[in-house]
Amino acid sequence: MGVVIPLEEKAQEPGIEGLLALVSPDMARVNQTILSRSASDVSMIPEVANHLISSGGKRLRPMLTLATAGLCGYSGAGHIKLAASVEFMHTATLLHDDVVDESDMRRGKLAARMLWGNEASVLVGDFLLGQAFKMMVEVGSLPCLEVLSSAAAVIAEGEVMQLSVAKDTQTSEDDYLAVIRAKTAALFGAASEVGPLLAERSKAEITACRGYGLNLGIAFQLIDDALDYGGTSSALGKNVGDDFREGKITLPVVLSFRRGTQKQREFWRRTLEKGEIAGDDLETAIATMHQHRALEDTIERARHYGAMARDALELFPASPWKFALNDVVDFCIDRAS
Amino acid sequence: MGVVIPLEEKAQEPGIEGLLALVSPDMARVNQTILSRSASDVSMIPEVANHLISSGGKRLRPMLTLATAGLCGYSGAGHIKLAASVEFMHTATLLHDDVVDESDMRRGKLAARMLWGNEASVLVGDFLLGQAFKMMVEVGSLPCLEVLSSAAAVIAEGEVMQLSVAKDTQTSEDDYLAVIRAKTAALFGAASEVGPLLAERSKAEITACRGYGLNLGIAFQLIDDALDYGGTSSALGKNVGDDFREGKITLPVVLSFRRGTQKQREFWRRTLEKGEIAGDDLETAIATMHQHRALEDTIERARHYGAMARDALELFPASPWKFALNDVVDFCIDRAS
Repeated sequence: MGVVIPLEEKAQEPGIEGLLALVSPDMARVNQTILSRSASDVSMIPEVANHLISSGGKRLRPMLTLATAGLCGYSGAGHIKLAASVEFMHTATLLHDDVVDESDMRRGKLAARMLWGNEASVLVGDFLLGQAFKMMVEVGSLPCLEVLSSAAAVIAEGEVMQLSVAKDTQTSEDDYLAVIRAKTAALFGAASEVGPLLAERSKAEITACRGYGLNLGIAFQLIDDALDYGGTSSALGKNVGDDFREGKITLPVVLSFRRGTQKQREFWRRTLEKGEIAGDDLETAIATMHQHRALEDTIERARHYGAMARDALELFPASPWKFALNDVVDFCIDRAS
Repeated sequence: MGVVIPLEEKAQEPGIEGLLALVSPDMARVNQTILSRSASDVSMIPEVANHLISSGGKRLRPMLTLATAGLCGYSGAGHIKLAASVEFMHTATLLHDDVVDESDMRRGKLAARMLWGNEASVLVGDFLLGQAFKMMVEVGSLPCLEVLSSAAAVIAEGEVMQLSVAKDTQTSEDDYLAVIRAKTAALFGAASEVGPLLAERSKAEITACRGYGLNLGIAFQLIDDALDYGGTSSALGKNVGDDFREGKITLPVVLSFRRGTQKQREFWRRTLEKGEIAGDDLETAIATMHQHRALEDTIERARHYGAMARDALELFPASPWKFALNDVVDFCIDRAS
């Protein structure tokens, strides 16, 4: 259990230790697979890939594959490669997102595109996607291939959808939900569905795990959105204001715009649509959100999806795996308060 | 047989009519599949995809899948979706290449990234790649999935390799061959290999078709490289000088650099490595290539790979399919003279 360095720092956070302990032996194998499958004679590939892969992401998505496989009593080895595939799909998305968003930073480090250029981010992303599909094919489960390849298309569709709502303050809550359901929740859902699929469990159990992942993914993204404006805590964490500076329309904005005065709507149009951001506009944005309880209610909406995730798992009998998966829901939501 | 508009204009060119006639009914189904699988509720997706898909590419790669399936007597329907997948993989690569190369034009039209932005090119490319994998999974042949997913990873690897040799006039012929083998020939090889795989033919026949496609792909790329400097014809076609302006190192440059004088090597370093291109530098480049027979010998090298492609097919008995596939080799090479 030596290789899980990026996880240890997270071990102190409440709610996820149970899962970390349960998946730890499998996760070491996943990390090994990630390392060996991002190797290439073309040295730029492992350089770029490892820059991001070793930057301390939580690896929540591959953990969902391992945990749902555990929950369903799977005893084979296919979940290791599928978990690594899921992480590669996620990493590829991050690399491409950085190019799309023209981001300078990612996970507190310079974005890969700042160090190696847009071209490396695009192409190494493509390489990881190719490796992800190769690993899935090696596992050889057509149902799992179907779920994961569909997710790949849906994620890209969601990203394009996000482009078309970008900077549009008129975006409705439903439109926004459709975006995050596709661009974030689809991979959480797929990652959780391949566990019971590998274990050849019943349709109901497969649907349950997918529903768990999908709703957890929505909750996760909503909390991320709230955290980008500091959540409900008065102490601002890192990365606060990124979405604001990039003109991203997220649920806290959607709610604040709808609930706001004419003058406040003018403010959102100026800052997010036109990108004219002055000195203390971020502070004004956060104050306006607090005035309308937009952050509290974004977190409240997340709780709703968290409850759905939890209920989806209810048909499984009590087990350490089920207990740990439920704790993940709390872990995701508690980050914001 | 109504939908094959982009093909008709090519029907006059020598050497490919036989293939066009043979694949025509299947190609209509492939075109239909391409159209329906690039559809999406997110309207930007079909807009961007169709901009490129309907821009009159030859669709040579999907034709190889159809033709090798025909050669091997395949009687199922899987080759239609696999051919469409191959074209989607190719289209995704073109969309990503435009971002990587910062190209303004593609197939005589404005590149998609100029009309919809880099972000749309990256993400619609990802969407098409996702759809390609979905279709392959629907066909359900694990051996075909293995071949095509490996090709996806190798293509991306080749593109990154190209980045690392970019603007390096010291690139050797072997290095350059490794790049085009990966970034171009791998997809030709995979497109040709899935035909006999679907038809469950012998290992020798599968290897033969793969060898045909791979060597044809190398020949095709070398001819493209020669054409970018006008080939051996004195009349310059369209797109002449694109590679030169982008500082791309291709075989005509590799040969001219090695065979050149010290002063000529200085010229290549100034124009391609430093990108300092003045008034009649392109004419000088072409004249230098002619002086060293660099274009003639690039075409000669292409003939060598063309001969290998032809010989690979020799173990198949005579048939209209074999005849047509051999003609494709001539068609590809004759473009340059």
